[in-house]
Amino acid sequence: MSKYPVSPFAPESFPDMPPVPGFDMATAEAGVRYQGRTDLCVLRGQPGTEIAGVFTRNKCPGAPVDWSREALARSSDAARLIVVNSGNANVFTGQAGRNAVMETALGASDIFGGPPEAVFLCSTGVIGEAMDASKITAQFPDMAARMTPGGWGQAAKAIMTTDTYPKGFTITAMIDETPVTINGIAKGSGMIAPDMATMLAFIATDAKLSQSVLQALLSDYVDDSFNAVTVDSDTSTSDTVLLAASGSADHAPVTEVNDPRLMLFKTALHALMKDLALQIVKDGEGISKFITVHVSGAVNDMSAKRIGQSIANSPLVKTAIAGEDANWGRIVMAVGKAGEPADRDKLSISMGPHLLAQSGLPAAGYQDAEGAAYMKSPEITIKVDLGLGDGKATIYSCDLTHGYIDINADYRS
Amino acid sequence: MSKYPVSPFAPESFPDMPPVPGFDMATAEAGVRYQGRTDLCVLRGQPGTEIAGVFTRNKCPGAPVDWSREALARSSDAARLIVVNSGNANVFTGQAGRNAVMETALGASDIFGGPPEAVFLCSTGVIGEAMDASKITAQFPDMAARMTPGGWGQAAKAIMTTDTYPKGFTITAMIDETPVTINGIAKGSGMIAPDMATMLAFIATDAKLSQSVLQALLSDYVDDSFNAVTVDSDTSTSDTVLLAASGSADHAPVTEVNDPRLMLFKTALHALMKDLALQIVKDGEGISKFITVHVSGAVNDMSAKRIGQSIANSPLVKTAIAGEDANWGRIVMAVGKAGEPADRDKLSISMGPHLLAQSGLPAAGYQDAEGAAYMKSPEITIKVDLGLGDGKATIYSCDLTHGYIDINADYRS
Repeated sequence: MSKYPVSPFAPESFPDMPPVPGFDMATAEAGVRYQGRTDLCVLRGQPGTEIAGVFTRNKCPGAPVDWSREALARSSDAARLIVVNSGNANVFTGQAGRNAVMETALGASDIFGGPPEAVFLCSTGVIGEAMDASKITAQFPDMAARMTPGGWGQAAKAIMTTDTYPKGFTITAMIDETPVTINGIAKGSGMIAPDMATMLAFIATDAKLSQSVLQALLSDYVDDSFNAVTVDSDTSTSDTVLLAASGSADHAPVTEVNDPRLMLFKTALHALMKDLALQIVKDGEGISKFITVHVSGAVNDMSAKRIGQSIANSPLVKTAIAGEDANWGRIVMAVGKAGEPADRDKLSISMGPHLLAQSGLPAAGYQDAEGAAYMKSPEITIKVDLGLGDGKATIYSCDLTHGYIDINADYRS
Repeated sequence: MSKYPVSPFAPESFPDMPPVPGFDMATAEAGVRYQGRTDLCVLRGQPGTEIAGVFTRNKCPGAPVDWSREALARSSDAARLIVVNSGNANVFTGQAGRNAVMETALGASDIFGGPPEAVFLCSTGVIGEAMDASKITAQFPDMAARMTPGGWGQAAKAIMTTDTYPKGFTITAMIDETPVTINGIAKGSGMIAPDMATMLAFIATDAKLSQSVLQALLSDYVDDSFNAVTVDSDTSTSDTVLLAASGSADHAPVTEVNDPRLMLFKTALHALMKDLALQIVKDGEGISKFITVHVSGAVNDMSAKRIGQSIANSPLVKTAIAGEDANWGRIVMAVGKAGEPADRDKLSISMGPHLLAQSGLPAAGYQDAEGAAYMKSPEITIKVDLGLGDGKATIYSCDLTHGYIDINADYRS
């Protein structure tokens, strides 16, 4: 959908995503901002569907985020709806924005069922432009006639903004003897930063799980998936991840997150969330290199995460990697500026298989030519050991290229 | 000196800087890294010179920073030396780096006088490469024969790395009835971030001030000068600002920072520090726009500063300005991600004379065309009012352009 070059990490094709029993969906061209493409998606869970959510920690969230946070607090035995549009984020739009949210929820409730106050709303796109809800609600009757369980690929496309490919993942797990499906879709690809409940992602399963189980799993796994990626350190005002369970599957309900019957489901959900999060990074604006930063030996895990973020967000580290320069001096700088405990003389730094620096000086025998050869790889792994404790973390990121400037210097024009 | 285009904010010429009584200096081509240009500078203060300093808060400082921090703790009645080289930062170089520092200080002491442990050393350039001190000390005898009070312009050139113009400022003040001179030089221009004692800057005066007065003034004024600028959010491992007073001037000594006789001197020093700090930003790597961010109405000044930094360091804000897009939505995002108290519905945002957003929605009557016209200006002023309290701060920065990527993707190659 983007006019910019497709990410070199784009998959060859979108995965073949089966229906998830208990869910159906439709997309439409509402013309919110884009022309000639879909920009609206309605996902519906059958009555009894439970939904968990995590939202941006940005202090200036959009009206849809405020609304969905409240929806999360309400349970409903009726159908549950998730309405998503791209093109306009409905952020910083005042009372008119709040009215648009309410109008959309009412319209969706009318046409697709369920109480309006329990509708989840997600918007992504430009900030600060008035949202014309009538463009969205006008599509609902036609969409209602086209609701299908098999529209995951279309849904993934409808929520894209500057993404260069749609992002989806499907996996099955067993609860008791019953197979359950988990589907997820997500979108990026700028204003992506860790330490928050990141961009838009929607995950659905037919498993029969209580809301408390869903919320516990989502909150737990978001830490090393969506909250472990960063494109540009900029935390969006609209980030939302929703996890919905229709309960269609034929197993006895699970109401405790520590229930041993969840073992395979947990593994599958966790894998799905990590995959979607990495798909977002791999479509980071202007990406030419995918970067994994492993930090170990920090005083604790939080400290390790902050150091990893400092490295992954450093413009100088990101541009060096774009330039295929194994410039580990900039990694030293980024470790030191993080404000976390660090001892220069205990620090070691590797890139891929090469130990570059150790104990406060360049590693014996390291040749710049080895590093230079490694830096040609499309996927770069940086390992930093602080030598202080057991704290560790992994952060996923991308480089900073001319493509990022191209995309963001003329996004609105 | 840079192979990249000269900053559009470069002054037409270097200021005509008079000698500062009590100081002399020389530069040389030591060939540390660069060829065909000076890369070494020795500044000498006469016996009795007092020196104050502030240093990087990066946790992985270079060996010269460690050394100079200790030198600051030592007073000496003999000549005081500041030895500066560009091309190699002598950071992350282990025991060999510490040896190089000692060898340089000993060599300087031998040739220029003063105790070696009281020599200040500053290095800027590549991180993690062994420093050959003999290249530096070999120049000292010849430099000693060329020491001159009038070499400020040459000194400013010798300390440059990716700077596109030398940075200097001179001002006079009165203490009692005695005129005193203050000269300063500085260098940038990447790895520049606030909240630290920033890049290399050297300030000299002939005023007769105690070390405690000098240190108090420097520490006070660094906050809204060097610590209020950011190019790329990356805090260097070598940042050092030194303020030296020879005491040559013919006034009674000043030993209390609140002495009313310092009034004009304070104003002059403060102006000099702000000017040098702004010169660093105005030569920020790849700069096309100079950005001033005024934050008011925050809960306190520190909160205002953090919000200002969040705006000034946001890649999305910086690229929007590079693209001449009055994209205030990204400013909302940057306010919200700062982690400081903020209320979307009390926030107002202006760019130059235009009020863009107010009370949680776009300002009535604002036309995108007005903002677009203003964004053509080379100097952009952003005003953000939080509407919460009396906290305020100003941050100076530059945009993020293709030039920054060009410079930093191939800095070492």
